[in-house]
Amino acid sequence: MPDLKPALEYARNHNLQALEALKELIRIPSISTLPERKADVLRAAEWVAERLRSYGMQNVAVLPTQGHPVVGGETKPVAGRQTVLVYGHYDVQPVDPLDLWNSDPFEPVQRGDDLFGRGASDMKAQLVALLQAVEAILRTGDLPVNLRFLIEGEEEVGSPNLKAFMEQQKDRFQCDFCLNTDSSILAPDLPSITYGVRGLAYFELRVQAAAGDLHSGMFGGAVDNPALVLCQVLAGMRDARGRVTLPGFYDPVQPLMAEERKEIAQQPQDEAWWLAQTGAPALFGEEGYTPSERVAARPTLDVNGLLSGFTGKGSKTVLPARAMAKLSMRLVPDQTPDLVRQGLEAHLRSHMPPTVTWELEDLAHSLPAIVDRNSRPVLAASAALEDVWGKQPLLNRTGGTIPIVGLVQEVLGSDSLLLGFGLPDDNLHAPNEKMHLPNFYRGIETFIRFLYRIA
Amino acid sequence: MPDLKPALEYARNHNLQALEALKELIRIPSISTLPERKADVLRAAEWVAERLRSYGMQNVAVLPTQGHPVVGGETKPVAGRQTVLVYGHYDVQPVDPLDLWNSDPFEPVQRGDDLFGRGASDMKAQLVALLQAVEAILRTGDLPVNLRFLIEGEEEVGSPNLKAFMEQQKDRFQCDFCLNTDSSILAPDLPSITYGVRGLAYFELRVQAAAGDLHSGMFGGAVDNPALVLCQVLAGMRDARGRVTLPGFYDPVQPLMAEERKEIAQQPQDEAWWLAQTGAPALFGEEGYTPSERVAARPTLDVNGLLSGFTGKGSKTVLPARAMAKLSMRLVPDQTPDLVRQGLEAHLRSHMPPTVTWELEDLAHSLPAIVDRNSRPVLAASAALEDVWGKQPLLNRTGGTIPIVGLVQEVLGSDSLLLGFGLPDDNLHAPNEKMHLPNFYRGIETFIRFLYRIA
Repeated sequence: MPDLKPALEYARNHNLQALEALKELIRIPSISTLPERKADVLRAAEWVAERLRSYGMQNVAVLPTQGHPVVGGETKPVAGRQTVLVYGHYDVQPVDPLDLWNSDPFEPVQRGDDLFGRGASDMKAQLVALLQAVEAILRTGDLPVNLRFLIEGEEEVGSPNLKAFMEQQKDRFQCDFCLNTDSSILAPDLPSITYGVRGLAYFELRVQAAAGDLHSGMFGGAVDNPALVLCQVLAGMRDARGRVTLPGFYDPVQPLMAEERKEIAQQPQDEAWWLAQTGAPALFGEEGYTPSERVAARPTLDVNGLLSGFTGKGSKTVLPARAMAKLSMRLVPDQTPDLVRQGLEAHLRSHMPPTVTWELEDLAHSLPAIVDRNSRPVLAASAALEDVWGKQPLLNRTGGTIPIVGLVQEVLGSDSLLLGFGLPDDNLHAPNEKMHLPNFYRGIETFIRFLYRIA
Repeated sequence: MPDLKPALEYARNHNLQALEALKELIRIPSISTLPERKADVLRAAEWVAERLRSYGMQNVAVLPTQGHPVVGGETKPVAGRQTVLVYGHYDVQPVDPLDLWNSDPFEPVQRGDDLFGRGASDMKAQLVALLQAVEAILRTGDLPVNLRFLIEGEEEVGSPNLKAFMEQQKDRFQCDFCLNTDSSILAPDLPSITYGVRGLAYFELRVQAAAGDLHSGMFGGAVDNPALVLCQVLAGMRDARGRVTLPGFYDPVQPLMAEERKEIAQQPQDEAWWLAQTGAPALFGEEGYTPSERVAARPTLDVNGLLSGFTGKGSKTVLPARAMAKLSMRLVPDQTPDLVRQGLEAHLRSHMPPTVTWELEDLAHSLPAIVDRNSRPVLAASAALEDVWGKQPLLNRTGGTIPIVGLVQEVLGSDSLLLGFGLPDDNLHAPNEKMHLPNFYRGIETFIRFLYRIA
């Protein structure tokens, strides 16, 4: 391994510049969901492109998509080296309710160890930390890997145009693995690597009995009630043990390994934490698993919305014609949205009575993913984190869905490593978003060490 | 019997004015369940009071209650005459979903023989027909009975304040019997008298799991889903034979007599009619009964509304904190709302899991009732209907709930005769409510003949 010292020293000597760069980027209100911010979103893209150009990268471009552009660029490729695709996004969430912010969301302010501003943690600090690491290495020596960049501007609106774009530009992004920096660690002194994300299959189910709403007195008891049919069909989707009953649902599920269970047990979230955090009168879940295991590594089914008939104040004696449910499943390897949909359809076909008609609409889907815990990127990240934090990082699976991880797998055939330095209390998507600055600086150092260790 | 001809002639010569009066009343959007319609509801009450005053009635007043007012008034009482209490309501149901109406619900439009508008059949046309009949008699001669009026404004919300009001104002409403005009016949050429009504027990059930909405990825599978719990609890309220499973639900139910089953079988509504009328792909209901029997004389349970989580367009991965259902049971003698509530609570107590909290709110309740099929008012109505239609009317039980029938029995000790001229396909409580105008005009004539025959 080449000598790291010059790069680490460069980085430490440039922490002030790193902080200034971060503030500069936060000042650009790149809210991707607001049409009136389109020029600001573009400005953020150009800011990133300019940084890549300043390092002497090649093929740097602000690439148009059907929505906001993607920033691409790469180091001059050297044969025989690992090619790492860096994924990130330069867009941010809206800021409302503005009155709950203690300072201007786009004028970053440091209070104590934290820098406050929209996008500070999600994910401008992660992006700038990575750029600073690359700069430190390039200014003091040679990058031991080939780097490619895919920095998008629509993550906060669900990346609606990314798949089509990546399919068209596949060659530009081919890689050995993807370093996804849109991530966090469990606590300031608890370094961690996210090696798994859950997938998603999200549906709208519509049931209809009569052609129109009817008087429940004049027709109740002679025509079926679509709300009750919907309830019956949904209720049948899970059993008394908290398990999903859809045919074949668990067949492809990879069991939790003893090692993973041990790791999850080391996380600070115990049952008391889950109760306090949610305010629920009691926890719920699949028999045989702890709450953290259920969320991290077991598939689930949730009803996300219900609507039928009269829902205002008071009473209306209507026999509704229609009932609707939004329902979604969080998936774990090797479930796929396609297989889950097949099971759901089979359940519906066998449980829907002839007294109703029904439709199932596919609203969103995303593959689950796990990276091999003994893969080169995970081992390199683990070593890098231990170098910086002085303790072994926890390996962690998130219950959330990061569609880009499934997308990179699907389009490029590559695994993703999630390495970023946000914290669970950073107020992502909420007022007073912040970045814990010690994590930002440690992040720069970790990225430097990681890029050497992965080589 | 005095000469009817002048009154009948007056009525026929004033059909156009009757139609205009009906349109005028329909134009007042007297939706009793919507607080923002309070002024309109009052306007409808004043419209009715003004009509009574114009006939020279005495003690006409818009009487305050805890909710919307009651319109009272009476003819100058003459000793030795039957005293008939006319019951009606001037309020209407909400109009949503508005996009399913073919014309403005509050701008009555005639298409063919039908007049479309909210409240056209339920029950503004019945009320105006009765007023026109009274006007025709008073303008051409003398009323052979003492009339009293009780026209309320909260029928469509279950008359929550009527009982207390009637108890306070008992003297104002004492009568030999009540003529309840909130009713219908079986078909345009099938006159009928309703001698039984179903009761109602209407509830709102609220279920809560977490204290607030949560991210379904970060918490799904560890906290219960209140929408799914609600579905499970509701689904368990009926069985595969279409029977309600609440404890004790059928215990007080009077079995259908052979004579009643024979009469119901004479009604024109066969299975093909029920299918065509509702547009349902197949009929549903309690095993062992025809659709008409189920609606007329068997108790039922319906979900009238469902609401939870995200119900807009697209997907939102929310784990909802709360879920709500409106549910109601139609009751037959000798069921009572109290007994039904006890059964419901027992079901909830034994089926709600400890992972949620829940509340049950009583929104409306009403006793079922059957009146004597050989009483004087029933026989007079039967003769009046035969005069106008040229055929004997059918005796009939309605699936609807007319709380006033039980209330009049309970508070005033009087039976009610149900005589009104709506039709089963009038789209009550639904979009495109209509009144069949030939029935409206025949109704005026029938009321005139009835008021003479009862004398």
